[in-house]
Amino acid sequence: MIEIERKFLVNSKVFKDESINTNRIVQGFLNTDPLRTVRVRIKGDTGFLTVKGIGSDLGTTRFEWETVVPVEEAEALLKLAEPGVIEKIRYEVPCGKHLFEIDEFFGDNSGLIVAEIELESEDEAFETPQWLGEEVTGINKYYNSQLSKKPFKTWIP
Amino acid sequence: MIEIERKFLVNSKVFKDESINTNRIVQGFLNTDPLRTVRVRIKGDTGFLTVKGIGSDLGTTRFEWETVVPVEEAEALLKLAEPGVIEKIRYEVPCGKHLFEIDEFFGDNSGLIVAEIELESEDEAFETPQWLGEEVTGINKYYNSQLSKKPFKTWIP
Repeated sequence: MIEIERKFLVNSKVFKDESINTNRIVQGFLNTDPLRTVRVRIKGDTGFLTVKGIGSDLGTTRFEWETVVPVEEAEALLKLAEPGVIEKIRYEVPCGKHLFEIDEFFGDNSGLIVAEIELESEDEAFETPQWLGEEVTGINKYYNSQLSKKPFKTWIP
Repeated sequence: MIEIERKFLVNSKVFKDESINTNRIVQGFLNTDPLRTVRVRIKGDTGFLTVKGIGSDLGTTRFEWETVVPVEEAEALLKLAEPGVIEKIRYEVPCGKHLFEIDEFFGDNSGLIVAEIELESEDEAFETPQWLGEEVTGINKYYNSQLSKKPFKTWIP
């Protein structure tokens, strides 16, 4: 129930050539407080309810609990979500022995592409593909919970 | 997923003689916003995660979604809850063809006893036992989510 993840911006769309799986994701939040985020997600034809705690100092490690929810129940729960539902396509791109999950956002977060990699430990090494950009692990504004309230298009460059 | 319930104060403890089941309940909230309450409950040795929407005008009818959670996972989720965990004993008291669920609160809500009855429709008739007091359906301060933030002992008489 502890996740270790690092998050990066993505420089180009060439990663799409290496993708082995894609899913449309729609998600909203029943709480966007970083101390106790509650997320409702529909990924493909499956629903999920996910609770996350606050990140560690580095932002790498975070408590995460998830349960599968029938999609029609997830749709009902989404209606209760705070304003700011997020839509994105998730690409799965293998790289060495790891898998990058890359989210291309739409709507008010259009233009943002973010890659995440799950690790066994905070200092585990991994290959860095050429499309991988700046690390943004632990930066609040890149949390989906924050993107739902203050989307990418509202950011001042 | 729509619950119809009415809630009453309880005048005396004689209801305990008619109880057919009791459970200790510990619960906390991942969100206390009445628009999207998220509750973690441990009842006996079972965990639950429950999402409720806002009540109807009368407060009788409310969206409710619940899933069972292993108790050790519920304990982990409780650690993320907002301050103000609630402890109570729930008594189940049959009355005619209905069942009253009566919560006797402890800790900062000690002294408060509340009975709830689930109905098929907002205007369904039911027997009123002699220990049943004033109706408090839809009054915000009696919601457990509000009791966790502003407990009974802080109320001004």
